Amino acid sequence: MKPMDSEMLREQGHIMVDFIADYYKNLEDSPQDFPVLSQVQPGYLRDILPDSAPDHPEPLKELLHDVSKKIIPGLTHWQSPSYFAYYASSTSVAGFLGEMLNAGLSVVGFTWLASPAATELEVIVLDWLAKLLQLPDHFLSTGNGGGVIQGTGCEAVLVVVLAARDRIMKKVGKNSLSQLVVYASDQTHSSFRKACLIGGIHEENIRLLKTDSSTNYGMPPKSLEEAISSDLAKGFIPFFICATVGTTSSAAVDPLFPLGKIAESYGIWMHVDAAYAGNACICPEFREHIDGVENADSFNINAHKWLFANQTCSPLWVKDRYSLINALKTNPEYLEYKVSKREEVVNYKDWQISLSRRFRSLKLWMVLRLYGAENLRNFIRDHVNLAKHFEDCVAQDAHFEVVTTRYFSLVCFRLAPIDGDEDKCNDQNRELIATVNSTGKIFISHTALSGKFILRFAVGAPLTEEKHVTEAWQIIQKHATKFIHNKKN
Amino acid sequence: MKPMDSEMLREQGHIMVDFIADYYKNLEDSPQDFPVLSQVQPGYLRDILPDSAPDHPEPLKELLHDVSKKIIPGLTHWQSPSYFAYYASSTSVAGFLGEMLNAGLSVVGFTWLASPAATELEVIVLDWLAKLLQLPDHFLSTGNGGGVIQGTGCEAVLVVVLAARDRIMKKVGKNSLSQLVVYASDQTHSSFRKACLIGGIHEENIRLLKTDSSTNYGMPPKSLEEAISSDLAKGFIPFFICATVGTTSSAAVDPLFPLGKIAESYGIWMHVDAAYAGNACICPEFREHIDGVENADSFNINAHKWLFANQTCSPLWVKDRYSLINALKTNPEYLEYKVSKREEVVNYKDWQISLSRRFRSLKLWMVLRLYGAENLRNFIRDHVNLAKHFEDCVAQDAHFEVVTTRYFSLVCFRLAPIDGDEDKCNDQNRELIATVNSTGKIFISHTALSGKFILRFAVGAPLTEEKHVTEAWQIIQKHATKFIHNKKN
Ligand SMILES: Cc1ncc(COP(=O)(O)O)c(C=O)c1O
Ligand SMILES: Cc1ncc(COP(=O)(O)O)c(C=O)c1O
Repeated sequence: MKPMDSEMLREQGHIMVDFIADYYKNLEDSPQDFPVLSQVQPGYLRDILPDSAPDHPEPLKELLHDVSKKIIPGLTHWQSPSYFAYYASSTSVAGFLGEMLNAGLSVVGFTWLASPAATELEVIVLDWLAKLLQLPDHFLSTGNGGGVIQGTGCEAVLVVVLAARDRIMKKVGKNSLSQLVVYASDQTHSSFRKACLIGGIHEENIRLLKTDSSTNYGMPPKSLEEAISSDLAKGFIPFFICATVGTTSSAAVDPLFPLGKIAESYGIWMHVDAAYAGNACICPEFREHIDGVENADSFNINAHKWLFANQTCSPLWVKDRYSLINALKTNPEYLEYKVSKREEVVNYKDWQISLSRRFRSLKLWMVLRLYGAENLRNFIRDHVNLAKHFEDCVAQDAHFEVVTTRYFSLVCFRLAPIDGDEDKCNDQNRELIATVNSTGKIFISHTALSGKFILRFAVGAPLTEEKHVTEAWQIIQKHATKFIHNKKN
Repeated sequence: MKPMDSEMLREQGHIMVDFIADYYKNLEDSPQDFPVLSQVQPGYLRDILPDSAPDHPEPLKELLHDVSKKIIPGLTHWQSPSYFAYYASSTSVAGFLGEMLNAGLSVVGFTWLASPAATELEVIVLDWLAKLLQLPDHFLSTGNGGGVIQGTGCEAVLVVVLAARDRIMKKVGKNSLSQLVVYASDQTHSSFRKACLIGGIHEENIRLLKTDSSTNYGMPPKSLEEAISSDLAKGFIPFFICATVGTTSSAAVDPLFPLGKIAESYGIWMHVDAAYAGNACICPEFREHIDGVENADSFNINAHKWLFANQTCSPLWVKDRYSLINALKTNPEYLEYKVSKREEVVNYKDWQISLSRRFRSLKLWMVLRLYGAENLRNFIRDHVNLAKHFEDCVAQDAHFEVVTTRYFSLVCFRLAPIDGDEDKCNDQNRELIATVNSTGKIFISHTALSGKFILRFAVGAPLTEEKHVTEAWQIIQKHATKFIHNKKN
């Protein structure tokens, strides 16, 4: 037995392709066999797997049998057409092929030399994507900026917090860490707070500005301005603003234009986290939501969320690549090579947390080429239209209410309160979602907005069609009758 | 066109399998078509790719044609049988199939609920692997510790530095950051320094203790003891030691036993980075190199380096999972679920930097099952024996010298100096490696040890056999004749 044998790879690879193609076929044709939200109990797997690794090889057939019988029942099927939870993490045929080819070529791309194509394609493809998003020229590789694919949105925000931190520390001295202050809204993804804590920013210096329904949960520029003034007066050093386009709870949009003006006037780094909604901005009709990105220092989207790129793929663009490189570079002798210091040579190890990195741009390149920009726009439009369809259903049922203004493919809604009883309403919505998800027929998730328990219906899985949305609504309505009936009594 | 279509996935997936199987076949049969180190010049790809993404779809056939003609010439072939640079990043048929299945199922594993099997299999498989490595019981999930697959070795060291930092800060107060001190040898991977800087540790408080050939570049316990005493006397707060088993330059081994005793006596967190060599410790005859790991607080290996797991896969074990979770947890409402707080439920988002994570354990499980522990041990033994064979060749040629004691599959060697002229020797070795790599027939890398320019010959690619090693040595010898001839003059 050898670890690599091209004919064995061929034979077993074909078996695996059929296994995966069958999975997608069955996911569509036999949904009853695939509860969208896994129905297993904690510890289920320990009971049915051995305690230790086998000494001797086991046949692929047996392994795939175990995948079907033991693993798949423990999966929550993110690619199911009836998956409407969190935000989707959408794959596609092209995204899948991209992962295959990446795993097949299996090169490492930490420096240019380690595989020049891995680096150069990333530079090029991120320029392509920047153009589709109509990002300002300073984010292109041709200026001082450039793009890099981070592993995740969390890594993206972490590296820019570090770049901004080290930039300001150079000015104010490294003993000023405890005075550094950052800003975001209370809707900002938890990864922002985590990134700041990782970077040593004091927890009490993380200002999460309050939002409410009056701005549809977008950050009020006035609050930012006031917070900065007040902090400056107290001797704090404001250095970072994280704005979000498409928050995780409700897809709220922070107003980039006024926020960017404030950031600029104080010399503060502004990052725009558009992990989910940024993908939609390749469509002209959604592009307005990132108007003002011209004033940002950095911007990221998660192409694994809604650009059909399969996990993981988080393009990040920065205005000034040197601030990133200054914060993250390493120079071990064993990675030096003749042209490593040349200005035009990119070494992505210096743009990220880790050294090792896969050929990250390959699948993004394949997604863009195998679909073309126009199809990708249409995939996104289809999802938005499906969300609109769901929103219409909700709006037409007096027992329910749509809770926030919908911009993209997420609908925030709930069973409406009866006689203004918010506590009871929260309980009923809690019960409703538990019941609905326990059917295994659909999976939706929840959030809290202004203390209210809210249901989230997010469209984004690659197999979802109108019939799945209609059916989801029928399931929700059906399980809601219990509460509606109670209402009438 | 739809983003997912099971029959299209099937058809195109089969084409891709053949493309990848052919790649491996050709890599073996027609090495002249695949220069191991890519011979392209910086900027080569920009000239042959369009400036923007296509509006309309392009056929897979055309894309694969471009992969062959434009991408592959820009790859450094890490899986080539004649790849001997850095450390290998070894794939295998099982590792490749694991990546395929992971990309195919495409679930997200941030919480238990998001896909219970993804979490539970990781807990189980890391227990399996811990047992193969004979790790102490406190690293198993059944105690206070447990395992987690990090994206990379860099992430592994970062998260344990953060866990240790936050543990000590709780005791000494958050304004003491500037007094925190860390220790490692000057051979420690650059990711350690980077992790410390990310965490806000002051650069001048990173003590990289000097090593030399007298300890074969292992960290001298006496230096550590002295450094700690001296720091304590000055009011510094020592809190972290990074020991390495198998350094990146020369596969040096820090003596875990005495270092661990010191760490224990001062209550300092000791991490053991065994990214490369740790994999070999599944063989009883290499296990002694991690003797003393019982006293470590954390331990990591890179299964993508030398356990045939394909990139990326960095198992990390910690003695006290709560210190990790305390440093990295987030609790957004939208990820809460009924059993999320139950003691036996693992939410891996709280064990790592990022939120999103793939079904990371799947391929490790597949590698362990499809090969079995005994084959994996033999793959490693084969590589070590090939390195031994190369070492013998070097040792038998009086013009060359083996520079360090070889423990694993890395040979550090060089053209020997003539009349003690070290500068000339460095120049000659520099020229030799440049010439040898420019043939495209093999790829070896270099490092610096005690100021000397050293050649590294690391065996680890999955297709490498004795004939490739013999041929590599012949190529090196042939290109060395120039200097040897000069010597005689
Ligand atoms: C707005 C936003 N930012 C950041 C993230 C984190 O992205 P990742 O999971 O890739 O780290 C998410 C994920 O849901 C998100 O919705
Ligand atoms: C000893 C050691 N530690 C850590 C690393 C970093 O691992 P990764 O590239 O997975 O981040 C390496 C990689 O070469 C290594 O050799």
